[in-house]
Amino acid sequence: MCEANAYLKKSGEESLMVMENVYNLKPEGGKLLLENIFGEQKLIDAEIYHISLMEHKIILQPKKPC
Amino acid sequence: MCEANAYLKKSGEESLMVMENVYNLKPEGGKLLLENIFGEQKLIDAEIYHISLMEHKIILQPKKPC
Repeated sequence: MCEANAYLKKSGEESLMVMENVYNLKPEGGKLLLENIFGEQKLIDAEIYHISLMEHKIILQPKKPC
Repeated sequence: MCEANAYLKKSGEESLMVMENVYNLKPEGGKLLLENIFGEQKLIDAEIYHISLMEHKIILQPKKPC
């Protein structure tokens, strides 16, 4: 199985678990829609900081202005 | 192995293969840096359209202005 866990990056090394077993990620109206293998969805006001498929990690960060 | 293939979405259903076996994706200076398992890197002036880890697909699209 190739899902990843999604985290929200906070200050420094801290990060907050947002959702486990994410298999689908899609920008939606300026936010990010995450879906996991249990059919749960979360719409997060964040942007991608780093995706490491080797580590099964999706790391998000608060959105920066353009 | 959990890498994904990256495609650039063109008009309609068309899409262009950008890189195979991507395991790492990171925004860099407004672009996206892709790395594959062979150590190759590509910096693409695009944004994420959809990531489906179940289908092993990263679909990019040309960047839209904010």
